[in-house]
Amino acid sequence: MAEVAAGERKGRKILVAVDEGEESGYALRWCLNNIVNQDSKDALVLLFAKPPRPVYSALDGSGYLFSADILETMERYSNEVADQVMEKAKNSCAGLNDDIKVETKVVNGDPRDVICQVAERLNVDLVVMGSHGYGLIKRAFLGSVSNHCAQNLKCPVLIVKKPKSHD
Amino acid sequence: MAEVAAGERKGRKILVAVDEGEESGYALRWCLNNIVNQDSKDALVLLFAKPPRPVYSALDGSGYLFSADILETMERYSNEVADQVMEKAKNSCAGLNDDIKVETKVVNGDPRDVICQVAERLNVDLVVMGSHGYGLIKRAFLGSVSNHCAQNLKCPVLIVKKPKSHD
Repeated sequence: MAEVAAGERKGRKILVAVDEGEESGYALRWCLNNIVNQDSKDALVLLFAKPPRPVYSALDGSGYLFSADILETMERYSNEVADQVMEKAKNSCAGLNDDIKVETKVVNGDPRDVICQVAERLNVDLVVMGSHGYGLIKRAFLGSVSNHCAQNLKCPVLIVKKPKSHD
Repeated sequence: MAEVAAGERKGRKILVAVDEGEESGYALRWCLNNIVNQDSKDALVLLFAKPPRPVYSALDGSGYLFSADILETMERYSNEVADQVMEKAKNSCAGLNDDIKVETKVVNGDPRDVICQVAERLNVDLVVMGSHGYGLIKRAFLGSVSNHCAQNLKCPVLIVKKPKSHD
């Protein structure tokens, strides 16, 4: 080609936002099948944003006092979810060539901030994500995660929706 | 890979929305360099949405009457823009293998509707576009084209921003 855009075919760093939803799993697989080049030195970063918890306050929003036990249980549950999400994501990547580096990251925080911050810090070439990541009501107030990221990220963003027929 | 998502690496239909802005040109080149597989039977559809004009009314929004001459000049100008956009887009694709089919489409209408309708009708596997496509003020009222498409399209959407350093 006469004109060459930034981002050579080889050695791109691709961030894939994963969460416990099925859509992000579909987005990851779509990316592996359509974007990642098996003959390349692409690097994948699988990122899970662990939603923030009231760690420093023992009071939840409704005024109930959480015991240390409950907080610990919540923390353990949250870690288990993160482990499961990452395990599943890594399984999807099992068939990749050894040349393709797969890294996992779990970062505490709102997915909208976490995805943008990590993408910026790692200077990735592409962010891949499902089209949502919040429940219906929360999304109505906050806007979708993908919407926020598409507006704020400087790099290209691939938003993948899970087709209805795959439910 | 154990799990296979829809959309095999070969023979995908990719719609690229092009317009007179530099960002869509960058988005097309990014797609050619990062998504289109030279060894594949990928097919590209280059789509230009020709903004609607007051064809059936000789009155513009401010109440001025346009003469037939002016309308004809506007129509000619609009066609010239479409031709130029398509010429430039086709030039970017010049280095592609002959196996990769490149089709061009000029469709009258609001880009937000045109992109979604054509993507649906052609059942494309991916839509590639720049992050905007309207001016600042119009975007503030209508939201960005990419935003609308990301929310309404059923297929994956790749939104590419032109890096500041490339200006």
